[in-house]
Amino acid sequence: MPGQPLHIGGESALIAALNRLFGPPPAGVAVGIGDDCAALALAGEDFLLWTVDTLIEGVHFDLAYFSLPQLGRKALAVNLSDIAAMGGEPLYTLLSLGWPRDRDVAGALALGTGLAQAAQEYGVAVIGGDTVAAPGVMITLTLLGRVPRGEMLQRRGALVGDRVYVTGPLGEAAAGLEMLQRGLALEQDLPRSLIEAHLNPRPQLHAGRVLASQRLATALIDLSDGVATDLGHICLASGVGARIPAATAPVSPTVKTAAAHLGLDPLDLALKGGEDYQLLFTSPPEQAPALFQAFAQAGLAPPLPLGEIILGSGVFLETAAGEKEITGQGFDHFRLDL
Amino acid sequence: MPGQPLHIGGESALIAALNRLFGPPPAGVAVGIGDDCAALALAGEDFLLWTVDTLIEGVHFDLAYFSLPQLGRKALAVNLSDIAAMGGEPLYTLLSLGWPRDRDVAGALALGTGLAQAAQEYGVAVIGGDTVAAPGVMITLTLLGRVPRGEMLQRRGALVGDRVYVTGPLGEAAAGLEMLQRGLALEQDLPRSLIEAHLNPRPQLHAGRVLASQRLATALIDLSDGVATDLGHICLASGVGARIPAATAPVSPTVKTAAAHLGLDPLDLALKGGEDYQLLFTSPPEQAPALFQAFAQAGLAPPLPLGEIILGSGVFLETAAGEKEITGQGFDHFRLDL
Repeated sequence: MPGQPLHIGGESALIAALNRLFGPPPAGVAVGIGDDCAALALAGEDFLLWTVDTLIEGVHFDLAYFSLPQLGRKALAVNLSDIAAMGGEPLYTLLSLGWPRDRDVAGALALGTGLAQAAQEYGVAVIGGDTVAAPGVMITLTLLGRVPRGEMLQRRGALVGDRVYVTGPLGEAAAGLEMLQRGLALEQDLPRSLIEAHLNPRPQLHAGRVLASQRLATALIDLSDGVATDLGHICLASGVGARIPAATAPVSPTVKTAAAHLGLDPLDLALKGGEDYQLLFTSPPEQAPALFQAFAQAGLAPPLPLGEIILGSGVFLETAAGEKEITGQGFDHFRLDL
Repeated sequence: MPGQPLHIGGESALIAALNRLFGPPPAGVAVGIGDDCAALALAGEDFLLWTVDTLIEGVHFDLAYFSLPQLGRKALAVNLSDIAAMGGEPLYTLLSLGWPRDRDVAGALALGTGLAQAAQEYGVAVIGGDTVAAPGVMITLTLLGRVPRGEMLQRRGALVGDRVYVTGPLGEAAAGLEMLQRGLALEQDLPRSLIEAHLNPRPQLHAGRVLASQRLATALIDLSDGVATDLGHICLASGVGARIPAATAPVSPTVKTAAAHLGLDPLDLALKGGEDYQLLFTSPPEQAPALFQAFAQAGLAPPLPLGEIILGSGVFLETAAGEKEITGQGFDHFRLDL
């Protein structure tokens, strides 16, 4: 399913081989390859967070159903989500915009308008970049953010016995994308909010800051590639496994409605669908009261329990029929045979 | 002529319109849109320099004559050149690599190998990024560097009466590209060094540091789009004009040889050809002895005089027939009609 850039994260042979080529990070780099952002010890008491993401026409979006302002907005949102996934706050961004020679440049301005509005909304400044000719529309944003050194959260850190939570319902963006791809956007019986979830994801910066500043999580990631893949990243980085009870997985009623209409398994949409851009985190059970209280005080919806961290490795789905491992089947751009 | 990404610099209507959208840089940003790098007051006594550049197959390179390791190397070089153009030293880079689904991923590793070797050579660490599917090979690098606050050089700062210099001969990369595009790479009569200049540009980091640390320049830029365009950027940013005497323009003998063979004007190659990645800078006449001495002591070739800064605006070529303005005809990826 079209979705997110595949992060240099370790699950693929190409990535692993590139990692070996590029070697271990030098002094001054607190986090290198293998997390949502790199983290640099350059800025006094803070770590500087740094990320880059590229969205490519025909791979990550279709202009048949994305307006150009929506696209500019989403390009920023997916980068902001990487900052949220380290518990940070965003600072600045550079834009590298690829634009076809034969496409009206007024469209580039429309894209820029969406980007500028989203940047203002999230308190990020666009401070430079470049424009290049390209075979299709292509947007790369690189973002800098910061997080106090003692607060930074990473993929690693989950402990056996921790609970696994997400900040919002799962599968909405994947269901919305299915509706768009099947031309069902205007279908009366289908919830419009799912399409909105795909077109206009909301990076969970506030929730990330609450988790980080109040030290309520042991590990944190954003849901770009789907729970199976992204919880798998946490498990791999933390040297643990995870178990998800199917019966209580936080699939929203709207996703169930849409799945019935589309002939899809709602649990598949929820666990393997990408681009929800909610945060997924782990937290010790004894922290649960403080966690729910902190979210309530911050005006955030309560986190949704998803499962627990277990000894071992891999992500397991627990059903009436037993347990089965769900491997990362979030969108993988390459079929890798290295 | 294929070459460099068009920097957000101000010469085009699209860029100007995007700049208006994104607004002035906030506090903490010493240099925003309109120079080779953004500069951030985040890192104590240093400015943090930040740049992004994208190279796209079919626009900026042709894999008929670029090997993948050469391409990885060049992608880093063009980004390093932007750091050199502020007088800085490079620190870290993130890679966003677009790769076609149907292309052997071993090629991505070959590209990574060239990038990793160049990174090691220049003391830069590759510390993260992403990989995405793309219609063609596409490489975006974003680079962070640093420069002591009092040393940073910009496009603005050139003063009337300053001399204009370049750090090396002009037109070599453009002549090499012509040879490659015409299939003349193996022609015995043509100098192989020109092809090397196109395939393997050398960012002038050392020269940039000498100019910055010894305060020998008033304005600085790297030659990505050609002298006419890039000196034009300095003139625009500094509120001055420039005059180049045609008779003494630093066109190398090899470029003259190739131009005769190719039926091209050597001065056109030198002044309008892009991608030399030499530095172009301005410096007061009274600094000339110190300038030449500093370059000699640093083991650098002496800077080549190109012209002088004059009252007014625009870049003028002075020939026996009089003066004519040469406008930026470096590679402009868009024909803009906004």
